[in-house]
Amino acid sequence: MELIYVDNNATTRPAPQVFEAIKPYLTDLYFNPSSMYEPARSPAHAITRSRETVAKCIGAGDARQVLFTSCATESNNTALLGTAQANPGRRHVITTVVEHPSVLEVCKELERRGLQVTYLSVDRHGNLDITEFVKALRPDTLLVSIMHANNETGVIFPVEQLSRITKETDPAIIFHTDATQSMGKLPIDLQGDFQHVDLLSFSGHKLHAPKGVGALFIRKGTPCRPWMFGGHQEGGRRAGTENVAFIVGLATALDLAVSRREEDHLYLRSLRDRLESALAEQIPAMQINGQGAPRLPNTLNVACHYIEGESILYRLDEHGICASSGSACTSGSLDPSHVMLAMKVPFTAAHGSVRFSLSRYNTPQHVDRIIQVFPGIVASLRKLSPYWDHENDRPRKDASTLLGQNPGTH
Amino acid sequence: MELIYVDNNATTRPAPQVFEAIKPYLTDLYFNPSSMYEPARSPAHAITRSRETVAKCIGAGDARQVLFTSCATESNNTALLGTAQANPGRRHVITTVVEHPSVLEVCKELERRGLQVTYLSVDRHGNLDITEFVKALRPDTLLVSIMHANNETGVIFPVEQLSRITKETDPAIIFHTDATQSMGKLPIDLQGDFQHVDLLSFSGHKLHAPKGVGALFIRKGTPCRPWMFGGHQEGGRRAGTENVAFIVGLATALDLAVSRREEDHLYLRSLRDRLESALAEQIPAMQINGQGAPRLPNTLNVACHYIEGESILYRLDEHGICASSGSACTSGSLDPSHVMLAMKVPFTAAHGSVRFSLSRYNTPQHVDRIIQVFPGIVASLRKLSPYWDHENDRPRKDASTLLGQNPGTH
Repeated sequence: MELIYVDNNATTRPAPQVFEAIKPYLTDLYFNPSSMYEPARSPAHAITRSRETVAKCIGAGDARQVLFTSCATESNNTALLGTAQANPGRRHVITTVVEHPSVLEVCKELERRGLQVTYLSVDRHGNLDITEFVKALRPDTLLVSIMHANNETGVIFPVEQLSRITKETDPAIIFHTDATQSMGKLPIDLQGDFQHVDLLSFSGHKLHAPKGVGALFIRKGTPCRPWMFGGHQEGGRRAGTENVAFIVGLATALDLAVSRREEDHLYLRSLRDRLESALAEQIPAMQINGQGAPRLPNTLNVACHYIEGESILYRLDEHGICASSGSACTSGSLDPSHVMLAMKVPFTAAHGSVRFSLSRYNTPQHVDRIIQVFPGIVASLRKLSPYWDHENDRPRKDASTLLGQNPGTH
Repeated sequence: MELIYVDNNATTRPAPQVFEAIKPYLTDLYFNPSSMYEPARSPAHAITRSRETVAKCIGAGDARQVLFTSCATESNNTALLGTAQANPGRRHVITTVVEHPSVLEVCKELERRGLQVTYLSVDRHGNLDITEFVKALRPDTLLVSIMHANNETGVIFPVEQLSRITKETDPAIIFHTDATQSMGKLPIDLQGDFQHVDLLSFSGHKLHAPKGVGALFIRKGTPCRPWMFGGHQEGGRRAGTENVAFIVGLATALDLAVSRREEDHLYLRSLRDRLESALAEQIPAMQINGQGAPRLPNTLNVACHYIEGESILYRLDEHGICASSGSACTSGSLDPSHVMLAMKVPFTAAHGSVRFSLSRYNTPQHVDRIIQVFPGIVASLRKLSPYWDHENDRPRKDASTLLGQNPGTH
C-alpha cells in the first residue's frame, strides 16, 4: 500500500537536495564555525552563505537581520518575550484567537507577567475584522503579533495592510508575523509589501528542511532583547553553537521553494481544488472551512457534520492516508480546535474537521485515491450515527436537538 | 597533509554510527512525532527510546526527567532562568568564575533582574575552595550552578561533594551542574554519586553527536518553570516540534560513549599524558594549566611564557593541527581567557595558552606529529620575542619588567 502523506502543514519530507546539502556538515565538515583554524572556515562560510540566501528569499536586504533559531516556536518566543523585555514602558499586545499555540501560550505568559493582551476574533470564514483591529490599537500597544497564514485552514491574513495601518497609527508599535505556514508558499518581500513588518518567524520543517531549525527576521533597530544568553554566536543575539547542518538545510530548502514557488502554487492549487470539488460534490452536509477567505494553495479543511474527525482520520490511516484534524502541536486533545471554535463552526461539525495539506511530492494519483476512499468513510461512519437519516442520506431533522440533549455522546 | 583535529572540547566529529542512526529521520521517517497516524509512531517511539537510553546512561531512573533541548546553552538558560522564575522568594545564586559563558552570561542576566550572584574563585590549579563554598551558602540561596569539568583546562569539580553539602545545608537549594564536557567521559549516576544534583545540562556535539541538540535532566519535583512556550511537546516543558533526528543522534552517541568509557578513558589519558610529558620535557618556561587538579583524561592546556597563543595556533594550523586557545564561544576575543585570569596564570603566559583536546578518533601518530612540530613552533616564535634570552634559551632576566613597561606590545 502506497503511503499518501497529505499532512504537510504538520511537517514535510526533507527534499533530497536538502539532505545532500546537509550531509557534509554531519560528516567531514564538523568543525565549530567559531574556531579560528582554516578548516573551520567552511562551516563558518556555510552559515554566512545560508544567511544571505534566506535574506534574498525574503527580501530582507541586510542579511544580519536574519537570526537562526532551533524552531519557529523559539522564534515566536524570542519575538514576543524579547520585545516585552526590551520595552517595559508599553504593556499591551494585540494578537488573534486563531494563532498557533507558540504565540497564544507566550501571550498567556505575558499576561501572567502583567501585560494586557487583546485577542482579535475571526468571522465564520476565518477572516479578521479590520475595524476591530484598528480599534484595538492603543497608545500603550507594544506589539502586534498576527500570523500570515493559518495552519489549520490555510486562511491568509492581510499582513501587508495590517502592518501598514499599525505603523501609520504609531511607528513605535512593533509588528510581528508568524509566517511558518506561508514561507515558501506566498511571496514575502520585507523591503516591499512587508516593509512594515519588524519581526517575522518561520521554521525549516514546513518547507522540506528538517525539524530542529527556524529563523527570525529582526528588522534593524527593532528593540528586542536576546532571549538565550551565552556565547557571541548570531551577532550576540542567540547564544549556542550553531546547528550548521540544518541552517544549511533551511537555506537550501527555502531557496528551492522560492525558485519553484509559482509553478508549485499552480500545481498545488489545481490538486487542492480538484480534491475540494470532488469531495463537496460527493459528500452531503460537509462544509469547507475558510472557503470564503483567501487561502494557501495547498490546504483543504473540511468539516463533516455528525461524525468525529478522529474516526475519519483513523479510517484514512487504515488506507495509508496521513491527514490530520488540525495542529499536530495539539493533537491528542479531545477538545475541538480553537480555530474551529473561533470560526463558530457549528458544534455538529466542530469535531468533524479534517485537514488535507499537500506538498510538491503529492501526485494527482494521491488526490484520486483520497477522492476514491474519503466519501465512503464518511458514509460508513454516518451509518453508525444516530443523528443521520439513513433513508434520505441527510441529517435527521431533530439531530441538533438530539445532540444538544446528549452533549456527552458527541 | 593529514588533518589532526585536537579541539574536541570545542566540537567533535559525529560518529559514523550516529550519522547512520540519524539518516532515516532525515529521509523516510520524517513524520511529526505528535501526529496520530500509524507512520508517525516510528519517530514518536524513537524519541521515547532515546529518552530511555539517555536516562539509563546518566542513571536518571524515570526517563521523564530527561528533557531534550537544542543545545547545552539552551539547557543552561532553562535551568537558571526557569528556577529563578519558579522561586521568586529566593534571590541568591552561587556559581564559579570559570563557568562557560552560557552560565556566566545568564548569571549576569539574573543580576540585571535583581538577583545576587556569588562567583566562587579558583586557586592557581583551578580548584575550588570548599570552605569558601560553604560560607557562600545563604538562607536565601536559590540555586548553585557549578560545572562538572572545565572546558578550557579539563579541571573536574567535586560535584558529588558540593551537591551533598548543599542539600545538607538546605534541601530547598537547587543544585545545577553543567556536565557538557564530562558527559560520556566521566561516570555520572543521578541515583548514585549525583543523587543530590537536581539539574544537569549537556549537549550532543561534544560527544560525537551533531551540533543542534542538548538535554537537561530535571529531577522530579524540582521547581523549574518552562522557558519556551507553545505546544505540548516534552511533557509541556519545552514547546516546539522535536528535532527527532538529532535526539536519536544524541542518544546513540551517548550510549556509544558510555559503553566505551573505561576503554576510551585509558586510551585518551595515555595519549594525553605522553603529549604532556614530551612537551614539558622539550619546552622551557611552559606551564601545564590545571596540572595540580583532577582533570579530564583528554584535555591538555599549556601556557608558553612570552609568546602569544594565537601565534602558536596559527603556526599549528599551517601544519594541519587544529587546536585552540580556549573556548570556541569566545574565540576572536583579544582578552586572555577568564579561566586563565581566574587561575592567576602570570600575565607573561596568560596570552600563551593552547588547549589540546583529544577524542577517540585521535591516533598515537597524531600525538607524535604534535610532539614533532610544537616545540619548534614555540622556539621559532620566541626567536622573534624581545623578552627571550636566545643565548641561554630562557626568558631574559628583565623580561617581566620589560613586559610590565610595555603592556601594549603584549
